[in-house]
Amino acid sequence: MTHFVNDIGSVISESIDGYLRVAGGGMLSRAIDEPGVKIVLQQTIDRSKVGLVSGGGSGHEPAHVGFVGQGMLTAAVCGEIFASPSVDAVLTAIRAVTGPAGCLLIVKNYSGDRLNFGLAAEKARAEGLRVEMVIVADDIAIQNAPRPRGIAGTLFVHKIAGYAAVRGQDLAAVKAVAERVAGAVQSIGIASTVCNIPGRATHDRLPDGMAELGLGIHGEPGIERIALPSASDAARIMTDRLGQGPNSAPALAMIINNLGGMPAMEMSLVANAILATEIGRRTAFVVGPAPLMTALDMRGFSISVLPLDADLTESLLAPTSAPSWPGARAVLPVSAQLLTTKPLGATYVASPNPQAKRAVEAVCKALIASEAELNLLDAKVGDGDTGTTMAGAARSVLSAIDHLPLNNSAQLCAAVSDRFTKIMGGSSGVLLSILFAATSSKLAEGASWPAALGAGLDRMEYYGGAREGDRTMLDAFRPAVRALENGDGLNGAALAAEAGAAQTAKMPMARAGRSSYLASRDLDGVPDPGAVAVAKAFGTLRT
Amino acid sequence: MTHFVNDIGSVISESIDGYLRVAGGGMLSRAIDEPGVKIVLQQTIDRSKVGLVSGGGSGHEPAHVGFVGQGMLTAAVCGEIFASPSVDAVLTAIRAVTGPAGCLLIVKNYSGDRLNFGLAAEKARAEGLRVEMVIVADDIAIQNAPRPRGIAGTLFVHKIAGYAAVRGQDLAAVKAVAERVAGAVQSIGIASTVCNIPGRATHDRLPDGMAELGLGIHGEPGIERIALPSASDAARIMTDRLGQGPNSAPALAMIINNLGGMPAMEMSLVANAILATEIGRRTAFVVGPAPLMTALDMRGFSISVLPLDADLTESLLAPTSAPSWPGARAVLPVSAQLLTTKPLGATYVASPNPQAKRAVEAVCKALIASEAELNLLDAKVGDGDTGTTMAGAARSVLSAIDHLPLNNSAQLCAAVSDRFTKIMGGSSGVLLSILFAATSSKLAEGASWPAALGAGLDRMEYYGGAREGDRTMLDAFRPAVRALENGDGLNGAALAAEAGAAQTAKMPMARAGRSSYLASRDLDGVPDPGAVAVAKAFGTLRT
Repeated sequence: MTHFVNDIGSVISESIDGYLRVAGGGMLSRAIDEPGVKIVLQQTIDRSKVGLVSGGGSGHEPAHVGFVGQGMLTAAVCGEIFASPSVDAVLTAIRAVTGPAGCLLIVKNYSGDRLNFGLAAEKARAEGLRVEMVIVADDIAIQNAPRPRGIAGTLFVHKIAGYAAVRGQDLAAVKAVAERVAGAVQSIGIASTVCNIPGRATHDRLPDGMAELGLGIHGEPGIERIALPSASDAARIMTDRLGQGPNSAPALAMIINNLGGMPAMEMSLVANAILATEIGRRTAFVVGPAPLMTALDMRGFSISVLPLDADLTESLLAPTSAPSWPGARAVLPVSAQLLTTKPLGATYVASPNPQAKRAVEAVCKALIASEAELNLLDAKVGDGDTGTTMAGAARSVLSAIDHLPLNNSAQLCAAVSDRFTKIMGGSSGVLLSILFAATSSKLAEGASWPAALGAGLDRMEYYGGAREGDRTMLDAFRPAVRALENGDGLNGAALAAEAGAAQTAKMPMARAGRSSYLASRDLDGVPDPGAVAVAKAFGTLRT
Repeated sequence: MTHFVNDIGSVISESIDGYLRVAGGGMLSRAIDEPGVKIVLQQTIDRSKVGLVSGGGSGHEPAHVGFVGQGMLTAAVCGEIFASPSVDAVLTAIRAVTGPAGCLLIVKNYSGDRLNFGLAAEKARAEGLRVEMVIVADDIAIQNAPRPRGIAGTLFVHKIAGYAAVRGQDLAAVKAVAERVAGAVQSIGIASTVCNIPGRATHDRLPDGMAELGLGIHGEPGIERIALPSASDAARIMTDRLGQGPNSAPALAMIINNLGGMPAMEMSLVANAILATEIGRRTAFVVGPAPLMTALDMRGFSISVLPLDADLTESLLAPTSAPSWPGARAVLPVSAQLLTTKPLGATYVASPNPQAKRAVEAVCKALIASEAELNLLDAKVGDGDTGTTMAGAARSVLSAIDHLPLNNSAQLCAAVSDRFTKIMGGSSGVLLSILFAATSSKLAEGASWPAALGAGLDRMEYYGGAREGDRTMLDAFRPAVRALENGDGLNGAALAAEAGAAQTAKMPMARAGRSSYLASRDLDGVPDPGAVAVAKAFGTLRT
């Protein structure tokens, strides 16, 4: 039991109320509770037009309640989960919607629904109401089935008959188009899990790695059990079974129906596979992929296909106020753009500057020399790779030193940032890249080195989330930059960085960065290796 | 593994293509494939307006791709499942959308996203582009968390900043409203299962009957493990944790987010429970319930709450072409109508008719007398209750015989139909009710008894799905009615019914009705008990 429900007995009523509260919008209404009578209907019913009533067992949401609205159903009658509504409930709905224009019942082909909707229709006729019925049996899973099931293809009947009704066509015409659609639509489903019914233990008959093909929407077993196919194989197997109509029509409409438990990402992938099949390539309009006629949380999908002509296309595309109708959308080729992956600015031009070169080389060599020491420190408080990461970055910069724009400090910082992005793994590489990129931008605006580095550290703090005192390289870098800002020169900066790095050994807990998952006692006395690396770098710049 | 996918390596690309094929509609486009660069963007970008870029790991669909469109995002950058996109991918998106008006990055508060979007922003700035960032950290699960996660509340930022941008506000103003919303929105989630990642074995840490409260959208454990609460308890526990802002605002907007694996029925029920809480009662607009910011197929939901003012309300309600934005809908009380459950026609008035009374009594007594015999027959081919069912119906009619409209044959049939509906269980009761209701309607139109009964049988066939020869009561009833139509009188009808019932013993297989699940050899020589009952009834009418 993994359901979020209250009383099992009131699941349907509470679900309907939740739906109406959010989606009712002053347009939908329900019947006042009576035992066994659960009806959702348009708030204002134009009885000069043919009323459309559908419904059946619950557990298929948004069907059928979600398709009540102008241009689709006039009313939906809801049974308990997977159980037909009572004759009284259907009859009550018929009486509520039927005026001089009459009423069409759209019924999925299950014995219970046929009988209960049927008896209600006969009783309504005996009361003098004009009632007709169309039975939808779109499931093609069983070849030559005497009584094919009605599944998601029923929604095409709702939509197209709904348009005929709202346009003011008479009962005979609405019934005729409904029968035409019901006769032409074909559906087939597949699933890799069964559904879970609130209040009942799950009986998962499907082993991992298996799927059922040709299954209904009530948790009943599928016609065939097969090894779980790939999305493309599933699409091909299913569309291969579609019969003469869909296989010869020049243009098709398709419903891609999530049976309830498929994530949206996977449904899009499945849609892609379906639209790549031969049937898919002739599909002009798709409804979905979306949960439309579900089997609670079953992990699977169904495909319904309807051959189109101009009239059916117009009916399908016509607007409706039914809240859960996702619209029929034109299938288009994927539009792909070639985007600029090259930098927009000027590329760096190598420029010599002996002083800058000496400084860069000194920092790099110091970091390379400290590889083992830094790794040892990091092994105590992290994953032991700080030295290797820093030394790798330093080697990368050294190897390119004669190609760097050494004589343009803004460009030099940008080039170093790029190197770090490419070479250094993990968050420390990104953080140093951010530092140098932001410093570069500030230098380019004419800022001094201390101001630019300060701004770079600000960005590093913002993106990284660490603050001074959090036992990171900031604890050496901030004091060094403050010393520069105070006019203490590079010697002052080096001293400040060293003192800051030493301080980290006494910091009780890391709030961010690699040490944040360790208890304080494990950190005691060990300085942060990132801060030590920064101190070593500044140490080489002493004059 | 229960996923319908193809190559694990191309899950995201195929999903994006499937989405664009169906939802692209000439408005959306993607970047031409480069390793690690997956971007969906508006096909035509107005660079005189602020561009909005969001994204992050995949597996949260429809976020973020589904929210690209006029009035929401300009581009979404997609990482692999639950993994941040690369710096290059983000930078490519920034370059594609950023013109003179600049660009705002909307980033959920995860280290990877902050760093990769952050570095991309700094590099873009270094290239001279105007880029700002807002970080969303709406998850309130962990009290005083140093780094709260960004979850579904992020969608409020997309929508409201999107409106500011499309209205032509400048970068500072768009950023300001985005930060205002990001600072005010609060979210919390709950789930009863973990999610299944394509290509990885499921690690279901949650035992049946347990839930995790305060969990993120990447399958990471929740803050607390609790016994699976009812929908109402979950709603109360979660809304109780919302902080000062939501708790004092007079009007709220709410996102009710399906984490991916909840069926629509249950989400409506949950919405009903949430809207009944104190916070729910102050909620003016709801986005959802729908899968919006999912964790693949996780079975759970999250609630996000934003205090409203006039500006935010206008921004939230403004139209957008983003295909997966479900709109913010006004929460309204449930509208309930008192529907007519009484028959529309005149009620029956008892009327005497000695001849009719004798006939009805004779039929009823014969059926009561045959109870044991019919049960015995049915025990061989069905569930052994035909005699009891028929006798029960007969007793019910007999007990009411002096209250029946005996002198009005149409009304008499309608009254008998009503009795059968109320007394007889199972499909045979409904089928006989249908027969008498349809016969009643025809008689009321002035048809003769044979014509009316023939029409009644037609309806019984239509709704029941059985035909003559299918080993049902039709096999006695049809020949009897044909005899009446041929002018053979009641004696001829009785003979025909008897012969028809006898014939059923030789029928090889039932295509419908109670015997349809038995092998032919089990039926051999046993007549259908329903057909025998009909023959017995006609037998009493011999003159």
